[in-house]
Amino acid sequence: MRYMEYPRRLKDVIEELSREESYQSVCHRHHPDQPMPSSRVLGEIVDLLREIIFPGYFGESSTRAESIRYYQGVNVEKLYELLRQQIYAGLCFDCKMANQKDLWMRKEKAAEITLKFIEKLPQIRRLLATDVEAAYLGDPAAQSTAEVIFCYPAIRAITNYRIAHALLELGVPLIPRIISEMAHSETGIDIHPRARIGHHFTIDHGTGVVIGATSIIGNHVKIYQGVTLGAKSFPLDENGNPIKGIDRHPIVEDNVIIYAQATILGRIRVGANSIIGGNVWLTTSVPPNSKILQEKYRHSGFMDGDGI
Amino acid sequence: MRYMEYPRRLKDVIEELSREESYQSVCHRHHPDQPMPSSRVLGEIVDLLREIIFPGYFGESSTRAESIRYYQGVNVEKLYELLRQQIYAGLCFDCKMANQKDLWMRKEKAAEITLKFIEKLPQIRRLLATDVEAAYLGDPAAQSTAEVIFCYPAIRAITNYRIAHALLELGVPLIPRIISEMAHSETGIDIHPRARIGHHFTIDHGTGVVIGATSIIGNHVKIYQGVTLGAKSFPLDENGNPIKGIDRHPIVEDNVIIYAQATILGRIRVGANSIIGGNVWLTTSVPPNSKILQEKYRHSGFMDGDGI
Amino acid sequence: MRYMEYPRRLKDVIEELSREESYQSVCHRHHPDQPMPSSRVLGEIVDLLREIIFPGYFGESSTRAESIRYYQGVNVEKLYELLRQQIYAGLCFDCKMANQKDLWMRKEKAAEITLKFIEKLPQIRRLLATDVEAAYLGDPAAQSTAEVIFCYPAIRAITNYRIAHALLELGVPLIPRIISEMAHSETGIDIHPRARIGHHFTIDHGTGVVIGATSIIGNHVKIYQGVTLGAKSFPLDENGNPIKGIDRHPIVEDNVIIYAQATILGRIRVGANSIIGGNVWLTTSVPPNSKILQEKYRHSGFMDGDGI
Amino acid sequence: MRYMEYPRRLKDVIEELSREESYQSVCHRHHPDQPMPSSRVLGEIVDLLREIIFPGYFGESSTRAESIRYYQGVNVEKLYELLRQQIYAGLCFDCKMANQKDLWMRKEKAAEITLKFIEKLPQIRRLLATDVEAAYLGDPAAQSTAEVIFCYPAIRAITNYRIAHALLELGVPLIPRIISEMAHSETGIDIHPRARIGHHFTIDHGTGVVIGATSIIGNHVKIYQGVTLGAKSFPLDENGNPIKGIDRHPIVEDNVIIYAQATILGRIRVGANSIIGGNVWLTTSVPPNSKILQEKYRHSGFMDGDGI
Amino acid sequence: MRYMEYPRRLKDVIEELSREESYQSVCHRHHPDQPMPSSRVLGEIVDLLREIIFPGYFGESSTRAESIRYYQGVNVEKLYELLRQQIYAGLCFDCKMANQKDLWMRKEKAAEITLKFIEKLPQIRRLLATDVEAAYLGDPAAQSTAEVIFCYPAIRAITNYRIAHALLELGVPLIPRIISEMAHSETGIDIHPRARIGHHFTIDHGTGVVIGATSIIGNHVKIYQGVTLGAKSFPLDENGNPIKGIDRHPIVEDNVIIYAQATILGRIRVGANSIIGGNVWLTTSVPPNSKILQEKYRHSGFMDGDGI
Amino acid sequence: MRYMEYPRRLKDVIEELSREESYQSVCHRHHPDQPMPSSRVLGEIVDLLREIIFPGYFGESSTRAESIRYYQGVNVEKLYELLRQQIYAGLCFDCKMANQKDLWMRKEKAAEITLKFIEKLPQIRRLLATDVEAAYLGDPAAQSTAEVIFCYPAIRAITNYRIAHALLELGVPLIPRIISEMAHSETGIDIHPRARIGHHFTIDHGTGVVIGATSIIGNHVKIYQGVTLGAKSFPLDENGNPIKGIDRHPIVEDNVIIYAQATILGRIRVGANSIIGGNVWLTTSVPPNSKILQEKYRHSGFMDGDGI
Repeated sequence: MRYMEYPRRLKDVIEELSREESYQSVCHRHHPDQPMPSSRVLGEIVDLLREIIFPGYFGESSTRAESIRYYQGVNVEKLYELLRQQIYAGLCFDCKMANQKDLWMRKEKAAEITLKFIEKLPQIRRLLATDVEAAYLGDPAAQSTAEVIFCYPAIRAITNYRIAHALLELGVPLIPRIISEMAHSETGIDIHPRARIGHHFTIDHGTGVVIGATSIIGNHVKIYQGVTLGAKSFPLDENGNPIKGIDRHPIVEDNVIIYAQATILGRIRVGANSIIGGNVWLTTSVPPNSKILQEKYRHSGFMDGDGI
Repeated sequence: MRYMEYPRRLKDVIEELSREESYQSVCHRHHPDQPMPSSRVLGEIVDLLREIIFPGYFGESSTRAESIRYYQGVNVEKLYELLRQQIYAGLCFDCKMANQKDLWMRKEKAAEITLKFIEKLPQIRRLLATDVEAAYLGDPAAQSTAEVIFCYPAIRAITNYRIAHALLELGVPLIPRIISEMAHSETGIDIHPRARIGHHFTIDHGTGVVIGATSIIGNHVKIYQGVTLGAKSFPLDENGNPIKGIDRHPIVEDNVIIYAQATILGRIRVGANSIIGGNVWLTTSVPPNSKILQEKYRHSGFMDGDGI
Repeated sequence: MRYMEYPRRLKDVIEELSREESYQSVCHRHHPDQPMPSSRVLGEIVDLLREIIFPGYFGESSTRAESIRYYQGVNVEKLYELLRQQIYAGLCFDCKMANQKDLWMRKEKAAEITLKFIEKLPQIRRLLATDVEAAYLGDPAAQSTAEVIFCYPAIRAITNYRIAHALLELGVPLIPRIISEMAHSETGIDIHPRARIGHHFTIDHGTGVVIGATSIIGNHVKIYQGVTLGAKSFPLDENGNPIKGIDRHPIVEDNVIIYAQATILGRIRVGANSIIGGNVWLTTSVPPNSKILQEKYRHSGFMDGDGI
Repeated sequence: MRYMEYPRRLKDVIEELSREESYQSVCHRHHPDQPMPSSRVLGEIVDLLREIIFPGYFGESSTRAESIRYYQGVNVEKLYELLRQQIYAGLCFDCKMANQKDLWMRKEKAAEITLKFIEKLPQIRRLLATDVEAAYLGDPAAQSTAEVIFCYPAIRAITNYRIAHALLELGVPLIPRIISEMAHSETGIDIHPRARIGHHFTIDHGTGVVIGATSIIGNHVKIYQGVTLGAKSFPLDENGNPIKGIDRHPIVEDNVIIYAQATILGRIRVGANSIIGGNVWLTTSVPPNSKILQEKYRHSGFMDGDGI
Repeated sequence: MRYMEYPRRLKDVIEELSREESYQSVCHRHHPDQPMPSSRVLGEIVDLLREIIFPGYFGESSTRAESIRYYQGVNVEKLYELLRQQIYAGLCFDCKMANQKDLWMRKEKAAEITLKFIEKLPQIRRLLATDVEAAYLGDPAAQSTAEVIFCYPAIRAITNYRIAHALLELGVPLIPRIISEMAHSETGIDIHPRARIGHHFTIDHGTGVVIGATSIIGNHVKIYQGVTLGAKSFPLDENGNPIKGIDRHPIVEDNVIIYAQATILGRIRVGANSIIGGNVWLTTSVPPNSKILQEKYRHSGFMDGDGI
Repeated sequence: MRYMEYPRRLKDVIEELSREESYQSVCHRHHPDQPMPSSRVLGEIVDLLREIIFPGYFGESSTRAESIRYYQGVNVEKLYELLRQQIYAGLCFDCKMANQKDLWMRKEKAAEITLKFIEKLPQIRRLLATDVEAAYLGDPAAQSTAEVIFCYPAIRAITNYRIAHALLELGVPLIPRIISEMAHSETGIDIHPRARIGHHFTIDHGTGVVIGATSIIGNHVKIYQGVTLGAKSFPLDENGNPIKGIDRHPIVEDNVIIYAQATILGRIRVGANSIIGGNVWLTTSVPPNSKILQEKYRHSGFMDGDGI
């Protein structure tokens, strides 16, 4: 290319990319004083929560009875500061027109929500202890609950879910979604924070699991990799937009096991104590104690060199 | 182990690992002056592209009309420098025998390709705006297009795909593949940069999606997690090597929806407006407007304590 | 909230989280002098191993014949130091009651195991060279073995597996699991380090693949994304705990291909040269040379606007 | 030491260090919502200012006429955000009792001061250009003004001084002091931000230079390493505290040169065009055009092996 | 240079640098299991100590009465771990021949010394509070004690000195020296950790101050930049090596002020309440209440264009 | 300030700062393809050189005879790559008009210079070993040569000087200056890389030492903190610019000791075996074996409460 051609061509693209028509449908405007949520800080927050909930595994907490209070104290106070700001950022994500007083009220609200969330931590720890127990008992390859807490992606994903769910119940927008996407990216397990899940919940391996927003899962449920609890097609309103907030995902009752790659769609009910075999496509309810398997495969002959 | 035994044993292994026969089939030789592509820098490049395409969401760009030009200007110029070097690295990946003049021509070529790619950015932004719209309209759980751009892994994966596809069309080797593997690792969505995909494309949840190199996807297509658009077995040449460049992946026409875990293999055609149910294994074409479901499952009785 | 209310409420939660009853089932006690395994350091170790095994691709090793020995030397010695400490951390993970002499013996043992592992590196390199060859020959989209080594997630996952497997065979606890989970998180491929896998093994795309602890895989096997080699329900002991160490995963013989999303469960045998089609649920053995496909789908009519 | 003795002894110290009497005279209380000034961020700010003032030397600014505006734009906007927050932190350093409205007013004030400071940047650049010229002309070892800007510690120290002085004149507390201490630590040159210094000012080598708060320095002045412009003893008020704000440092008129290690104390005047020799102790005014030298040394005999 | 010449020439240098004769007088051998002291970690330790001693200024400690104990607790425990390891590294610096039992005893000793040092922290805090008070009262430019603690290099240097002195008194080798050199590098103030210094000590500006190993300084002493308390020539033993441990630096009694650049050498005594003027060379004792000034300068005429 | 006033005012400043008249005297233009020297990389280079020269002290080199060659090999090769690029950057600092061929020749020249410098490393190591010996023998407080190498700022400064001097002798511009300024900033010792200094050179404490460009220092010389070997006023050419390259700094012969704060200016000669006392101002030559002291101070009376 000729000398001085490249600055001109770059300049032309820059001009085009800077025209308002070019960017207006994909740009985000916000107050300069209003923070954006930060994935990096939310990552720190989740690490801090894991350190608080499971003392001695993550970070550098001592677990001596004499000193554990120091670490819980510092970590909880640090959590309060960091989370309060992220919740505030979440509350402001769509408030580009907010006035000063409105921002102030959101700041107060963020502090109150943060405190309420922190007050739920003992309860979240109790629930996660049941999930750890279920994972340990459900996996012959597990050596100890310590290994489960330290290594298992399912515990990581369920921890993020229980945190995100508690935040969503307190009315926090956006932040729960980011927290669940963090687990999704790390583990391949995608649990919507709005889903309701009982105690002693466990997921084995987990990659590809999807649990939709209005799913309800009982106690002592175990699911394997690739399982979907999803929606069938959903109704549209008069403008062709999907109608929000309709219950459209399955209800899975207590003690159900769902094997790998099963796809269960719609507001159906999987009765208690049932087993759903792998690779099943299920769109109707099944009664308690059912055993559901894929139609048997075809043995389509022996290899003749052609492949499939 | 006896004192001084360990240095000797280490030394022996080092000698063995340094013999040419040991490493020659798995080592990469290149000019000392010729850079290797860098995943870290390509990560920066993709972040920069997201900042350019979606102003205000990522990085620290202002979106005030008075100043957006500054940020687009700096980011585009920075992109030009970084990308030019990575494209050059890609063009040199297999040129260990290149002479000085040849290297120089590759450098010129890298600059020209980089400019052409940057000139495509407004078009890439327009396409991605349609994908964002499709994701928002297709998910009752989405609160706003802002949430979709900021959080949805599908948008991240499709952005990487559209970038990688544009680079591959300009003749860049290796780099497009690395960019698509980055999205694959983060989202579990594996779209080959050579695939051709229309506007208003959306993927829900996405973990496990595979879209092969010669796939062709129309407009307004939606696919769910775990869907494969793959190849059946492929012909070998007389040496037993696979023959490259044969069309071997499906064609999916406009307005098709494919549910979770469906596996669609071979150069078949899925007619427009069709629905493919989850967990289906499909290796033959289907006409437009078809509804394809897995053979109904077996209810193999009620639980008797034996499991499956 | 009233002034001074928030410190009091935080203090109350901190007290509750610091009570021994609250944390005892989910906390980990260890000697202050005994290190915890570190994911960050294990990540460095795996990067170092990749640099040693595949010279010239990763890190900054020269591959000139005159100087490759310097780089192998420094990298192997650095590996020895880092790995020895992590293996020691693994050996101490559950030894909170160990006395000084016991710790010392574990330290010696860690050094000996590390040396033995390093002595296996030439063999691991030879095996991985066959895997690279298989991936290259098995993918028409691959341009060169260099691209395969540099970009393919399957090679990354199989490298971690072969490392983890060697460590586990030498009696290292916990560390192999962490190494395989690192690959699981990056690639979606979950291979238990205890599985036994022959040479020329390849995985295409890979997201969602699960290979269980007692699986045995022959030579020249190829599997696609979403394939599970898993266990059916497993026997419990008199306390309701799963019985450890029972062979419960499939045996896959030489030259088998398994297509996407197939779920193969239990101690069954897939005979040599067989093909298992995608989305199949298989819980019984099949003889050599079999071709197994899902029961054909239903064409449940044409679209009438209702979706599924 | 006996087992369990160390936790107890640590606990005792912690208790003592946490008693209010122990820490109250050396602790700093501030609002949780009120930021502390950050040395790290101020370091970024000074780097950013150097990049703005001297385009092309520091950071990654392009200096092509077509694009310099992008870089100045982004850097100035980034400066505005960072500096506004640090000035606010400076204004709040001592406001632990401030109410919400007071904080708000300080925030507004910080924004206004930041803007006024930025509006002074062209003038600061003009002044620094004269300092660069003086350093180049005054040092036979200097190869170019480029070398002076890029390498000379004096330019670094004078840049920090001119920034800090402008901030102090706008009424910013604390921050100017931190900025001048940063240069002090890096270069050994300690210029109080309150000093008034003319154009074409230069310092050679510089380590140990001290220029006190009420010093006044004319134009075209050059000083060498180790020179002090300091105060003699100062008057105390009735409580024994030093009286603040009294002029107590020297006035140095135009075209003066002061050689290494000279110590000049008190509100004296060094007349224009004078030379002060090295190691002089000067506490009285000297008229213009003076040449002042240390009393000649003693030649105390020849070496006899005893040293001094 | 000809192709392949450079690898050969590099190889030759590498060989020469690797011959034992080449490196043996400047190399350090140590056990692979014995850590080297780390400047980076010692920097962290000093930062931690500053955070413990001056709560609320550095790091992120809360200073609310309800929670200060958490922060002191965590910081003191973290200090214990880090410092114990560095002291152990110091104790092992010259122990390349130590056996296992000897190393073990040094480890025990390091733990005991660390505890004793920590038990001195309340006393160190009390002393530093007097130094802060003296700096504030002695500088009319100081706005508050808060500014003194936060910004003054003298407080930074004296803090490092008081820490290093306490460690040296407990018998720690090497580490005190490194800590005092850290302050030397940052502030230009070089206080030997063996010097003995009373309370209410202050240094103004400070660059170039040197206080030798056997100096004794009383209470309420103030010194300015460039002051040396040094040694004259020192006696050699029969091998020509300096005799260690002889008192060779000055004694400075209470309430003395020493102005900039004064050089005071030898085991002399500066009597209480004396003032030493700047740039004085003093090698004999002076009685209490003395005022010592440099011989008056020469006014060597007026400028004639020749300079000096 | 009124809403929308701040963007306008910022925009005005940005425009002013972007006008060519505003920045042209203080901006640096260079090829986009031509790197700027990097302080960060030069810092790495100096660290690498210290690791090569003093094995076992810095970095992570093993010093076992079996493996030291690996570390020297890798470090020397890494040095070659990094230094070659920095030397090239130095050679291009002022070549904004260079054409492609000219750049290529500079690149070749940089490679050749780098090799020649590396070939001097054994000699530099030998010289530094004499400096270490001198520092150890000259300081009664030094415990071992190990402590001297590990901690003494003088060794750090002299190492940088000997490196910078060798580079300057090979014709490298700018880089030597940056390397000596790095030591200046860390230690307060400012040795011009052009100075010529013999073996067994030592500096005690060192802050404020200045050694000018044309100084010549013999063997076994020792100088203390604050000593200047500087220039008197220097002749100007007809344009009023200083004439470059004139010998204008002192010659210090063998075995001289110069005490703290002495200022020695001009092309004078300090005869062998002389002692120069502290705070002396010396601008004329002294014969060998001289003892030079400051004129004795005045005892100006006893304290009367007035200070000085």
